[in-house]
Amino acid sequence: MELEFLGTGAGSPAKFRNVTAIALKLLDEINSIWLFDVGEGTQHQILRTNIKPRKIDRIFITHLHGDHLFGLPGFLSSRSFQGGDKTGPLTIYGPKGISEFVKTSLRISQSKLSYKINFVELEDEGIIFENQRFVVSFKYLDHRIQSVGYRIVEKDYPGELLVDKLHEKGIAAGPIYGKIKSGASVTLPDGRVIDGKDYIGTPKKGRIVTILGDTRQTPNILDLAYNADVLVHESTFGKGESKLARNYYHSTSVQAANVANKAKVRTLLLTHISARYVGSLVNKLESDARNVFANTKVVRDFDTFEVKFVNKHEDE
Amino acid sequence: MELEFLGTGAGSPAKFRNVTAIALKLLDEINSIWLFDVGEGTQHQILRTNIKPRKIDRIFITHLHGDHLFGLPGFLSSRSFQGGDKTGPLTIYGPKGISEFVKTSLRISQSKLSYKINFVELEDEGIIFENQRFVVSFKYLDHRIQSVGYRIVEKDYPGELLVDKLHEKGIAAGPIYGKIKSGASVTLPDGRVIDGKDYIGTPKKGRIVTILGDTRQTPNILDLAYNADVLVHESTFGKGESKLARNYYHSTSVQAANVANKAKVRTLLLTHISARYVGSLVNKLESDARNVFANTKVVRDFDTFEVKFVNKHEDE
Ligand SMILES: [Zn+2]
Ligand SMILES: [Zn+2]
Repeated sequence: MELEFLGTGAGSPAKFRNVTAIALKLLDEINSIWLFDVGEGTQHQILRTNIKPRKIDRIFITHLHGDHLFGLPGFLSSRSFQGGDKTGPLTIYGPKGISEFVKTSLRISQSKLSYKINFVELEDEGIIFENQRFVVSFKYLDHRIQSVGYRIVEKDYPGELLVDKLHEKGIAAGPIYGKIKSGASVTLPDGRVIDGKDYIGTPKKGRIVTILGDTRQTPNILDLAYNADVLVHESTFGKGESKLARNYYHSTSVQAANVANKAKVRTLLLTHISARYVGSLVNKLESDARNVFANTKVVRDFDTFEVKFVNKHEDE
Repeated sequence: MELEFLGTGAGSPAKFRNVTAIALKLLDEINSIWLFDVGEGTQHQILRTNIKPRKIDRIFITHLHGDHLFGLPGFLSSRSFQGGDKTGPLTIYGPKGISEFVKTSLRISQSKLSYKINFVELEDEGIIFENQRFVVSFKYLDHRIQSVGYRIVEKDYPGELLVDKLHEKGIAAGPIYGKIKSGASVTLPDGRVIDGKDYIGTPKKGRIVTILGDTRQTPNILDLAYNADVLVHESTFGKGESKLARNYYHSTSVQAANVANKAKVRTLLLTHISARYVGSLVNKLESDARNVFANTKVVRDFDTFEVKFVNKHEDE
């Protein structure tokens, strides 16, 4: 599970930052990649990574502003062109209007894709996707246009079978291990009865990643971010600009740090950085936030971040 | 008058070539820049040039395929964002559908521009723009989707007043020079009558630039390109691939060279180069065309080309 930032700028593409796109790589977990927002030039950025477009099978749009959206038709076309007939279907989640935008773009450009697109337009807050490994839900934020935050929750991993302990007790490997692992009470061939639960390690907590669209401060952020391993939060403004941020429906780096604190997240990644912030100004943006929440990082284009399990995390 | 190639690739953005966009810089002539096609990432390419988006006041789209179109909404938004209130209106010419695409993109992304867009959807072949200095016309080409070629004709410059000759004849400078320059018959203060035409140099021929959209070979190319100083022609395929080119509604470099010959153009610039052509293969594409039409060049991203006056041209 890895985040790769394909665009970390605000509003317009700038020299050092493209407009927003974030890849959540779930290759080890479910052999797919999810994309959050697709600003113009996202397919160009992908060309500079090892991401295969056909691996991207879900796209989550946070809001329909151009800097989060205008790369979508081009990405969809190239995904078809590059992947050929082997390319699987793709699901796009986003606010109402996402379907009309994509369909109009593809119809007028007469783009015929080699795969099917499934649209999910967001309405009621809550779960929008669930499989054996992940649950994704969303809540509304507070931006000039309807904007949402996504919470991606990995389900807990059941504990490992304690094979050493079984060996100690003289219980040999075989189909019986499956029964023991299910946690049931099991009668052994020699007549002993054991409780499967005694032979299973502690379950491993799944990871939580929260990715927010552009927003000013609003209580839903806390719900979305609660206990997250990683919170990706916009930081269009700097310390002392909270009034400006409020007027423009954005946040400051310090506001993001405060919410990271309250929500007890482990890591805060700040993105959607204005072109005004370059060089030492970026460091300032970061250090101001770190004074409030130490584990903060302002991300740059092509930064990758491994989302580690908590246990591992604490070891280090 | 200068051409700057912002994207010279075919279909999808590739490592060395972005998708199509061409700037025709008319800064000395009318202080504006015209854009021909706006593939995705055109605004990113512009960031790497000295082109000011607000100087671009006309955009001509050759056809609505994504690789010529998908950069338009983003460019329009950034032009508004960067230029502020000083930004003047902009006219977009293109096949039917261009207006719906742009309007839908701007409406769904809630982009409010600081300037007005005027749409001209192409119908009957012929003149679509004329001012004191230029005439632009279009004709249909032969592509899978409706595609056009544009012919930009600079009007001839009237001859210069032959001041030396006037001095020789003892005719002093004054308001009378204006009358002489109009070419009329003029009565001098001393009673002599002279013919203004005798004191005007030869008029300077205006320049002609022809920019074609994607196309397979069709007679209209000859009309569009006739006598052009520069013909910009697609070259998606190489020598020996004319059958492929025909099937995919494209042209080969040799076909382009042949039409350049027949149309008596001065310079042939080949663009829309497939990502298959890199390194020596590009040289081959070019030399095959040069065997037919010597003054041929395969352009690369950011190549600029000054369109010179014929007289100057012949001097060199
Ligand atoms: Zn934004
Ligand atoms: Zn094309």
